[in-house]
Amino acid sequence: MKIEVKKNIMATNSSVAAGNRQRLAEHGVCMLNLMASPGAGKTSVIMKAIEGTRDRLKLAVIEGDIASEIDSLAIEAMDIPAIQINTGGSCHLTAAMVSTALDHLDLDSLDLIIIENVGNLVCPAEFDLGESTRMVIASVAEGHDKPYKYPMIFREVDAILVNKIDLLAHCDFDLAQFHQVVQGLNPAAPVIELSCRDSYGTDEWCQWLEATAIGSRLDLTS
Amino acid sequence: MKIEVKKNIMATNSSVAAGNRQRLAEHGVCMLNLMASPGAGKTSVIMKAIEGTRDRLKLAVIEGDIASEIDSLAIEAMDIPAIQINTGGSCHLTAAMVSTALDHLDLDSLDLIIIENVGNLVCPAEFDLGESTRMVIASVAEGHDKPYKYPMIFREVDAILVNKIDLLAHCDFDLAQFHQVVQGLNPAAPVIELSCRDSYGTDEWCQWLEATAIGSRLDLTS
Repeated sequence: MKIEVKKNIMATNSSVAAGNRQRLAEHGVCMLNLMASPGAGKTSVIMKAIEGTRDRLKLAVIEGDIASEIDSLAIEAMDIPAIQINTGGSCHLTAAMVSTALDHLDLDSLDLIIIENVGNLVCPAEFDLGESTRMVIASVAEGHDKPYKYPMIFREVDAILVNKIDLLAHCDFDLAQFHQVVQGLNPAAPVIELSCRDSYGTDEWCQWLEATAIGSRLDLTS
Repeated sequence: MKIEVKKNIMATNSSVAAGNRQRLAEHGVCMLNLMASPGAGKTSVIMKAIEGTRDRLKLAVIEGDIASEIDSLAIEAMDIPAIQINTGGSCHLTAAMVSTALDHLDLDSLDLIIIENVGNLVCPAEFDLGESTRMVIASVAEGHDKPYKYPMIFREVDAILVNKIDLLAHCDFDLAQFHQVVQGLNPAAPVIELSCRDSYGTDEWCQWLEATAIGSRLDLTS
């Protein structure tokens, strides 16, 4: 098999992503692509969202991992539909993987699908999955220099979440400098500070998510 | 341009990596490929190695990042040769990138080259750079479940470093469970616990590094 490598892969992915986007619009479902380093707290952030919005939003989760079902089992234990995608060796989800996951969800019963992408600050930013909204989580333990080193992902998201705020006293993380750098890269993106451990910032995170899901639905159906 | 995608990329990379390995053997230089998530503390771990071994080992560092020169400037400030590779969009270093970096180092003057790979637990594990030794850093803040989710990298390294041990009291990291899982994946790899913040474990890390560099030199020249 011979193919024109990156150009063709990207063109095929974009076409499948457009199909996913159209399909979700027809069902009035918002889809959030949540990206972060390994261990930044993606699953915990999703679990806080479920706790805080389940009375008002009908949610499902698509879990992307190289291996294991740990995360989807944790979500299912909260009585939320969860589809696990194991990518094998691939360091990011593709639109085709998400399309297959959508086949297993009852889209008419949902307001919001949260995709937990593979833990990686590089390739996930390059692959459109058909989402309406993209978000990156930075963790205080990772250091405030990550936006310098991985500018693309911070530039291309709709919101930035700073997790593990409870570790500020124990890490050399300069919050003011972090805000300044991401403001330069992406002035339109709100930055939400959160601690899943002590629930600091949970209300703001859930309000943002609800407004995004409802706003997206209005856009999609207008 | 048409190429057979992954098979050809890997074959070319392996061939260039073999060339790097041969070249380093001729000069009696050990090369360590250091891999980890973004923000696991790779640069700090390297700086501890420089402080602890510079009297006995002649070191250089190759810094791999998507963007920025922050890390190589920090290493150069310690009077250690540092070559920055900015990969643009690529989420891992390749043997060809390292070959170019080696052109800029005086190999006869060195005992050890430490490569700081791009922050990523997936693709760096697939690309041989011509190193003699591979190592992964896990950070306490990332959680103890990372070996389940990224088994390949934990399986294929010669040693595992657990960094940010000072955060154990502030994170839900089960150290015993972590040891048990990595022991199952990779029984031969030593696990070194470290805190760059309070220098816990620095002696063990530097002793391991020195023994590895000297052992590798004996192997290379035997």
